[in-house]
Amino acid sequence: MKKARLNAFALLKLVRQQRPLVHHITNWVTIYDCAAIVKSFGASPVMAHAKEEVAQMAGIASSLVLNIGTLTPELVLSMKTAAQSAHKKGIPVVLDACGAGATTLRDQKVFALLKSGHIDILKGNASEVARIAGRRVRTRGVDAQTVDGDVAGLAAKLARSRKLTVVVTGRTDIVTDGKRRLFVKNGHPLMSKVVGTGCMAASVIGMFAAVEPDHVRAAASALACFGIAGECAARGSAGPGSFREKLFDCAYRLNEKTCLRAQKIEE
Amino acid sequence: MKKARLNAFALLKLVRQQRPLVHHITNWVTIYDCAAIVKSFGASPVMAHAKEEVAQMAGIASSLVLNIGTLTPELVLSMKTAAQSAHKKGIPVVLDACGAGATTLRDQKVFALLKSGHIDILKGNASEVARIAGRRVRTRGVDAQTVDGDVAGLAAKLARSRKLTVVVTGRTDIVTDGKRRLFVKNGHPLMSKVVGTGCMAASVIGMFAAVEPDHVRAAASALACFGIAGECAARGSAGPGSFREKLFDCAYRLNEKTCLRAQKIEE
Amino acid sequence: MKKARLNAFALLKLVRQQRPLVHHITNWVTIYDCAAIVKSFGASPVMAHAKEEVAQMAGIASSLVLNIGTLTPELVLSMKTAAQSAHKKGIPVVLDACGAGATTLRDQKVFALLKSGHIDILKGNASEVARIAGRRVRTRGVDAQTVDGDVAGLAAKLARSRKLTVVVTGRTDIVTDGKRRLFVKNGHPLMSKVVGTGCMAASVIGMFAAVEPDHVRAAASALACFGIAGECAARGSAGPGSFREKLFDCAYRLNEKTCLRAQKIEE
Repeated sequence: MKKARLNAFALLKLVRQQRPLVHHITNWVTIYDCAAIVKSFGASPVMAHAKEEVAQMAGIASSLVLNIGTLTPELVLSMKTAAQSAHKKGIPVVLDACGAGATTLRDQKVFALLKSGHIDILKGNASEVARIAGRRVRTRGVDAQTVDGDVAGLAAKLARSRKLTVVVTGRTDIVTDGKRRLFVKNGHPLMSKVVGTGCMAASVIGMFAAVEPDHVRAAASALACFGIAGECAARGSAGPGSFREKLFDCAYRLNEKTCLRAQKIEE
Repeated sequence: MKKARLNAFALLKLVRQQRPLVHHITNWVTIYDCAAIVKSFGASPVMAHAKEEVAQMAGIASSLVLNIGTLTPELVLSMKTAAQSAHKKGIPVVLDACGAGATTLRDQKVFALLKSGHIDILKGNASEVARIAGRRVRTRGVDAQTVDGDVAGLAAKLARSRKLTVVVTGRTDIVTDGKRRLFVKNGHPLMSKVVGTGCMAASVIGMFAAVEPDHVRAAASALACFGIAGECAARGSAGPGSFREKLFDCAYRLNEKTCLRAQKIEE
Repeated sequence: MKKARLNAFALLKLVRQQRPLVHHITNWVTIYDCAAIVKSFGASPVMAHAKEEVAQMAGIASSLVLNIGTLTPELVLSMKTAAQSAHKKGIPVVLDACGAGATTLRDQKVFALLKSGHIDILKGNASEVARIAGRRVRTRGVDAQTVDGDVAGLAAKLARSRKLTVVVTGRTDIVTDGKRRLFVKNGHPLMSKVVGTGCMAASVIGMFAAVEPDHVRAAASALACFGIAGECAARGSAGPGSFREKLFDCAYRLNEKTCLRAQKIEE
């Protein structure tokens, strides 16, 4: 693999200039964290899930982030309505397939959302993505399980068949639209010990996709910046409590010099 | 403008002595923060939104705080029921018009809640309040937009027509019942970079209104104490993560000496 | 009272080895905290409340934690379904009777959940437990009120009549199945100043019960470890904000040496 020609900070700079409104329909566990990471990086989060307003809210937003972490059928209905509105307006829609594979409901709803054709970027950990790609993986709750074989190949195939960009988070994040593949090696092991980093990653991807129409470049840049903030937060952290606090500080303070030096995106 | 004759700490002392129960029907993003700031200052928060219990919960509470940040029609129904119960009991009701102007649903529900006649204190940022006052402002999500003209005058007019106290948060907070106007200049720019400070301000106002029947004095004192806690938290904060943590610590430790020296309430 | 022959850390070690999946149907205020404390101690939390998936999720979990802090009738229906599934599978079910005694709805729903016969461990503060035991206590919101008389005796009687283990949290925690009584004296006064410690205690109990079939031993060990993490967090905390952050760090780093030395479980 070789270094990708990509300047993640350049996109973060755009985010800070344009302050895009990132509309979320997300889960109740990490809803604060999703809003906080978007705001810390310099954009503007809004959370709204009532079926009566989601179409209008998506209509004034610059991107839409969906997360099925604590889904109900009603919430998924709102997601569909919002995704349709976002699609019509031409803003990117990110789906975090949080817990896909754990229950039949999650599987069904992820497939229904994908079938709508309004999802631009699908994000999951290895077991979630493998499940959606048709593998017989049983996800245990919302934490990643080991998946054998060529996960990048699996993701690329899924991207082609679904005509979207697939993001697999893990020690090395994979971003692919079926043709191109980018690998992001930023981040820190402590990130997997903290509740909410997966959900936040999807929010950051949505934020970057709001300013960069190339979803592969947007997602890889987002994961690099988020991972660098994680590396920064891990320094001097005593555990998941202090890490979470520092993560928002590091996102807020992330600057060009640090970002350029630390960025690890390969192709 | 001159210094107002008001001792914000005297009311905080009452809060700590009486430990009022502050009933919230609020949003799912900052619900923890609203509870935590009330508890940190020394009162007792309770969150309850089931239509089957809100009237009874408001009936044992000392004040009621409503926030439409992640509203649904069902949640607003619970707000109306609780507000009616609170009004009947004679305890103050605060409405945080979070995101008013962003969607038709939010506008309609804010007007419906105001029309009930059970709201005592209406709180919003400049664009939210301008919208409610009838200005053609389009709020972008939940973050404040610049509003031209005499915001204090607009707020005073709204207060008179709606017969309530209006609070406009911003660099200088405005509190008015239409006749009197108080201006609170406490706070720190970092507060606008952190998710939840607006919602917490409404909770603190509700907490102070529980011990002081004069809503203008209660709201101005609340904003001064909250702002002073914010100034304290900003010292040594590296960003929004550490700021949030220190905010609760500073609220918990706020003492008479600091408060008297730092208070900036003008009339 | 004398020291109980119990090694709380031995169970924590099992938790860290087995990483049990702890399924929660909990409240919207402390849902992050419940997930975070379970993950910080080394297990795997999952939050899922849709009636369409709770039975299946409980079916892949190792324990189930229910909390009525922000209940609705629909949510309680999901709790019943999940508890039935958990009971059938033979995994322990913990009920946190958060706010019992505050409203009729809470009382009714707690009694309905207990009547199902699927609750293995009932947890509350003194006023909540007294209320459930039939005393005419009126709980003020979700904070503990003083209860006169022999709380341990009351809890033991309740445990016998309901055929479950009762946990009363407070300065000294009481754990009893009606025959045995254990008293846990770990913890720190700051814990009662922070939102969410009560809810987190129930989550930790659920996590320990997932690896230890004796519910009395599991609950007492859980409360000892949680209390020791609290003692650790209190050192150097400036208030509830820094305490909360350190609590997750301390749970994450809790080791055998500290735990053995600090453990205060008596019988």
